Amino acid sequence: MVVVMRNDATETDILRVVRRVEDASGDAYVVRGTSRTIIGLVGDTAAFLSLPLASLPGVDHVVQVGKPYKLVARELHPALTTVQIGGAPVGRAGFAMIAGPCAVEAREQALVSARAAKEAGATLLRGGAYKPRTSPYAFQGLARDGLAILAECREETGLPIVTEVMEARDVEHVAEVADALQIGTRNMQNFALLKEVGRARRPVVLKRGLSATVEEWIMAAEHIAQQGNSDIVLCERGIRTFEPSTRNTLDLAGMVVAQQETHLPVIVDPSHATGRRDLVPAMARAALAAGADGVMVDVHPSPTEALCDGPQALTPDELIGLTAELAALARALGRPVSRPRPERAAATEDELREAALLR
Amino acid sequence: MVVVMRNDATETDILRVVRRVEDASGDAYVVRGTSRTIIGLVGDTAAFLSLPLASLPGVDHVVQVGKPYKLVARELHPALTTVQIGGAPVGRAGFAMIAGPCAVEAREQALVSARAAKEAGATLLRGGAYKPRTSPYAFQGLARDGLAILAECREETGLPIVTEVMEARDVEHVAEVADALQIGTRNMQNFALLKEVGRARRPVVLKRGLSATVEEWIMAAEHIAQQGNSDIVLCERGIRTFEPSTRNTLDLAGMVVAQQETHLPVIVDPSHATGRRDLVPAMARAALAAGADGVMVDVHPSPTEALCDGPQALTPDELIGLTAELAALARALGRPVSRPRPERAAATEDELREAALLR
Amino acid sequence: MVVVMRNDATETDILRVVRRVEDASGDAYVVRGTSRTIIGLVGDTAAFLSLPLASLPGVDHVVQVGKPYKLVARELHPALTTVQIGGAPVGRAGFAMIAGPCAVEAREQALVSARAAKEAGATLLRGGAYKPRTSPYAFQGLARDGLAILAECREETGLPIVTEVMEARDVEHVAEVADALQIGTRNMQNFALLKEVGRARRPVVLKRGLSATVEEWIMAAEHIAQQGNSDIVLCERGIRTFEPSTRNTLDLAGMVVAQQETHLPVIVDPSHATGRRDLVPAMARAALAAGADGVMVDVHPSPTEALCDGPQALTPDELIGLTAELAALARALGRPVSRPRPERAAATEDELREAALLR
Amino acid sequence: MVVVMRNDATETDILRVVRRVEDASGDAYVVRGTSRTIIGLVGDTAAFLSLPLASLPGVDHVVQVGKPYKLVARELHPALTTVQIGGAPVGRAGFAMIAGPCAVEAREQALVSARAAKEAGATLLRGGAYKPRTSPYAFQGLARDGLAILAECREETGLPIVTEVMEARDVEHVAEVADALQIGTRNMQNFALLKEVGRARRPVVLKRGLSATVEEWIMAAEHIAQQGNSDIVLCERGIRTFEPSTRNTLDLAGMVVAQQETHLPVIVDPSHATGRRDLVPAMARAALAAGADGVMVDVHPSPTEALCDGPQALTPDELIGLTAELAALARALGRPVSRPRPERAAATEDELREAALLR
Repeated sequence: MVVVMRNDATETDILRVVRRVEDASGDAYVVRGTSRTIIGLVGDTAAFLSLPLASLPGVDHVVQVGKPYKLVARELHPALTTVQIGGAPVGRAGFAMIAGPCAVEAREQALVSARAAKEAGATLLRGGAYKPRTSPYAFQGLARDGLAILAECREETGLPIVTEVMEARDVEHVAEVADALQIGTRNMQNFALLKEVGRARRPVVLKRGLSATVEEWIMAAEHIAQQGNSDIVLCERGIRTFEPSTRNTLDLAGMVVAQQETHLPVIVDPSHATGRRDLVPAMARAALAAGADGVMVDVHPSPTEALCDGPQALTPDELIGLTAELAALARALGRPVSRPRPERAAATEDELREAALLR
Repeated sequence: MVVVMRNDATETDILRVVRRVEDASGDAYVVRGTSRTIIGLVGDTAAFLSLPLASLPGVDHVVQVGKPYKLVARELHPALTTVQIGGAPVGRAGFAMIAGPCAVEAREQALVSARAAKEAGATLLRGGAYKPRTSPYAFQGLARDGLAILAECREETGLPIVTEVMEARDVEHVAEVADALQIGTRNMQNFALLKEVGRARRPVVLKRGLSATVEEWIMAAEHIAQQGNSDIVLCERGIRTFEPSTRNTLDLAGMVVAQQETHLPVIVDPSHATGRRDLVPAMARAALAAGADGVMVDVHPSPTEALCDGPQALTPDELIGLTAELAALARALGRPVSRPRPERAAATEDELREAALLR
Repeated sequence: MVVVMRNDATETDILRVVRRVEDASGDAYVVRGTSRTIIGLVGDTAAFLSLPLASLPGVDHVVQVGKPYKLVARELHPALTTVQIGGAPVGRAGFAMIAGPCAVEAREQALVSARAAKEAGATLLRGGAYKPRTSPYAFQGLARDGLAILAECREETGLPIVTEVMEARDVEHVAEVADALQIGTRNMQNFALLKEVGRARRPVVLKRGLSATVEEWIMAAEHIAQQGNSDIVLCERGIRTFEPSTRNTLDLAGMVVAQQETHLPVIVDPSHATGRRDLVPAMARAALAAGADGVMVDVHPSPTEALCDGPQALTPDELIGLTAELAALARALGRPVSRPRPERAAATEDELREAALLR
Repeated sequence: MVVVMRNDATETDILRVVRRVEDASGDAYVVRGTSRTIIGLVGDTAAFLSLPLASLPGVDHVVQVGKPYKLVARELHPALTTVQIGGAPVGRAGFAMIAGPCAVEAREQALVSARAAKEAGATLLRGGAYKPRTSPYAFQGLARDGLAILAECREETGLPIVTEVMEARDVEHVAEVADALQIGTRNMQNFALLKEVGRARRPVVLKRGLSATVEEWIMAAEHIAQQGNSDIVLCERGIRTFEPSTRNTLDLAGMVVAQQETHLPVIVDPSHATGRRDLVPAMARAALAAGADGVMVDVHPSPTEALCDGPQALTPDELIGLTAELAALARALGRPVSRPRPERAAATEDELREAALLR
């Protein structure tokens, strides 16, 4: 960190900064310029962040130089993490396809979607039982009934389940069914929820907040990791900008930056990023070509009847077409595609229960 | 709402839309243009929002014309709401000054701040016991101990307390102490929390989300109102933009729009909007001149030692100066300033307990 | 400036940076941290900006500490500038009211607007003869005919004229008529145009770019000043954000920052900032209360017939009402309102010609 | 277009709208709702845009339904345009690689870069002789000398030249050397310049404005086309958002939308979009995978010495590596890569002069 002093800062002001840094076990180097003095801080950036440096008398502003994250930082942990979700790996080793309905609306709709995901070669099933909706008058999800349907989908298809949890007190019972807990974009800085999933024994899929910087997104992962859970998959899903032709603006460069900065896998959700079915295939291909560790795609047996985000859902046929296209592209890029574990494909209810107990 | 059809939409596509609208008890008027057909929907906008219109075959896009909110809409409830927080009114009738420390850090710091707020003529005390922080390494608040300190501040000064609640399961015990429950910017779409405060018997101060449109902000208030609690104060606190010289960009025009669209009081937080002490007075004056129903300002006995947001806190003397300045301005604008209830100034612990029981 | 080295930077990399800085007559102070080395640069920030520091081997990134502007910087020129536009002062000494039609559409429309501006007590007349329009199918302005009409308006009312110039080769003939040359938001970084108005003997009203940071806006003024013309009035007119309820988001805090950073007057255009007539008075009051040096407001005798930006224009009566309101507010704030020079009110064509020759 | 009336609009207000539309040769269909009336407009959207509908009494707001562009609209001109730049095609038929230095700094630097572009298989050479720079203290380009160097590069390599023109009065002499005229991001709405290049007999590469919506970008192309020049290549180069880790945010979905909406080729500039060399290859691959018609990449023989944008320039070796990678990816996508015309590779000065005369 660098502390930039005002040009009317006194010697006392400068010494005060130095003392505070030294009290926090850091070293402070004073550089006296013609118009301003700057003070270089050497030590633990995270520790300096808790000092009120910017408010000290004579300080103009503080520039962060080091990174504020530790546990998830690639700089400190160069080995890349592969997260196992119910046996399906997500990581740099293979490109993961996660597919499923945005929301679980009914048993039949979910099962048809799950079968489509399976047939398309997806290794993980997504689907929301709890749905955050801007309007209180829109469909809010089936809650526990939805979880039961998801469990049935897993039994039939063998695909592990990624599903959203919206509040801290739901974590326990959602984790009983889910193979991975998804934190939605609106909850990326719901710190109570982050803490709770950090204590759960389930991998977490952490979506980037609608207007979160990459650094804030990584800091949210740090909140989770700090509780002991480092099985985190980051998911870029578009940020809010002034452009109205798409629902959000997909930030693929931000995805790559997150890969550089952390040892965590980073996937892309082209469905929520664009909100438009016609743009999903192009953005899924782009994500793969940019080096993403996977994509998460909405599918619906009948998008025109979907209760949630129908305009962005692919039909089962479109999903199968997209997966084939991505597989060919992955080959050209020298990137393997994650495959479902063969034994999993025929998992029995008993095996699943046992697996759940062992976790 | 208006449904805009694609230029290759068939007659069947058009009829399908009409039928869906009529099934939802709406009326659909078809306007056939030279290149496109549009369908005007007449009826309940909120009901139409739950239809999958945008996904129906042949539909290009859907334009929302009516407003998606009802309970908080001024159009439907023209009488303006004055929210009583522990006896202090917030509404169009008088300009409210809410002041206090960003975070409760210690008994002495909170008491000195509370006395400053009182002396400056504030009618409400703000202060955070639970603090959402981007970094897990930063001060996270004193939690229940902080609430106890806030209660002591109220006893001494008579000022009712506005304090943040960060998760649904905390609402009950925070509401035991708080006169108003604050929802922070990061939780504006934490729907579980909105639901819970909607069921609580305490007024709510709802901060605008960092990147929430005015409409989304009002919809968050609708979520609360739908649970039975309409004692909601909206608080504009700056939005995220590309401009780096201030922490956020204060959207005063958005504040006025929220006043036009709802019957709720709307206040402004110039401290969090700018993040800079030197800009707080100018933005507080601007908020008053633009017609805000109050301001909420950070104060700290020693900003240079603050554990949270020190650079934006006024000193007690600066707060007193600002309040005097605002009072003079309010007179020129023909706007009364809210005054503390005289009897409240000397409220005893017994009275407060009794008041709490009666609520 | 501070150069932050990568953690794998070599001693050679560090020395290379030091040498480049010293070659540019600067001093470089090396601070060796545990994980990274930073180098503090002391000297002329503007000179360092032209060095390719960020591209040197081993450099992670460069942090700007000093300000990149000089001629317009308040730090270097503490005396505040009052810009005289055709005899009417714009500066900290008095709050200036500039009013007029967005576009000059016809002789009668312009004259009625000009008289309204005069009657309302405005000291300057705005009006566009050249109009930048997003659509080539929209009204593009009357060009030279519009300038002639503006000159006629000045003759009748005595109000000096502020009018936009859109390209470098028009500067000369626009300057023959205009008392101040306006640079529109889309041209804030049209450097050829900035250079040309920098050489003209007319004050410049420089609007902030739609998505320009305050620093970029000030740098655009520096481009003008560098050519010898320091008679620059900065004009905040709203920035582009995600919020759709207003045309742009008025950044009043950015206006105050521009006042702190430069010695130039800064005014506000609430009409273009909001695009909504109903919000103009509240934002004009807010601008005055925040300390702006003036406002520039659209007026139209019949906004419903306006060829350009009708929804944001006040009627003559509304303008007179607003001006009275602002005058009362200014008194309460202890801020004088600029008054037209009495002799100017009856200026003859001869006097004007003479004045033009003398400039 | 749809006109939404206020809920207190009178019958007279409604009839007034209908009359204005009919006067503009349109048809107006009135749909009377329970709370509001809406009026559907059938006819020429561009014509309606010049009506002051939003300002008419009783009108709440106007919703645009049709597209405001005509000449460049794919809906009206379904055949895709391939733009020939000095013999090198840019269009859907082949993926074009445009490379070269951001700025022409010196003869040697430009020649080395041009040879690298040639060797890498690029079909077009980019390079700026006129440079728009935020700071007046930064390198501003070599102007006419730079153009002469570019001509020499073309003679040696046979690569046609794309170079920026910054003001209307430069168009003529820049067009004497340039094979394509580039309009930079800051000039996207410099309408005088758009008009001038619209009259020139050279193709135009139109960069998207820093904060331009896709629709505004297309409208800028419409301004050019309206003057008779439809040889326009659109270039996505990142938009301004709140994210600080990259210079801009690359909007690949916006690129695809521009391809859907217009018949023009759309390319991507990953160098300016990210400002970071390490992100250029990933974003170039993503652009190709998303369906872009080409990329434009900065190359510099010694990026650490570059006078402009060094941190984003590839070295010649990196460029050659990237091109090979893109060629392999293009094959997998079934997309041919544009090849230089064989005869062009060895073009003599005479041939070039002749070609110039024939154009």
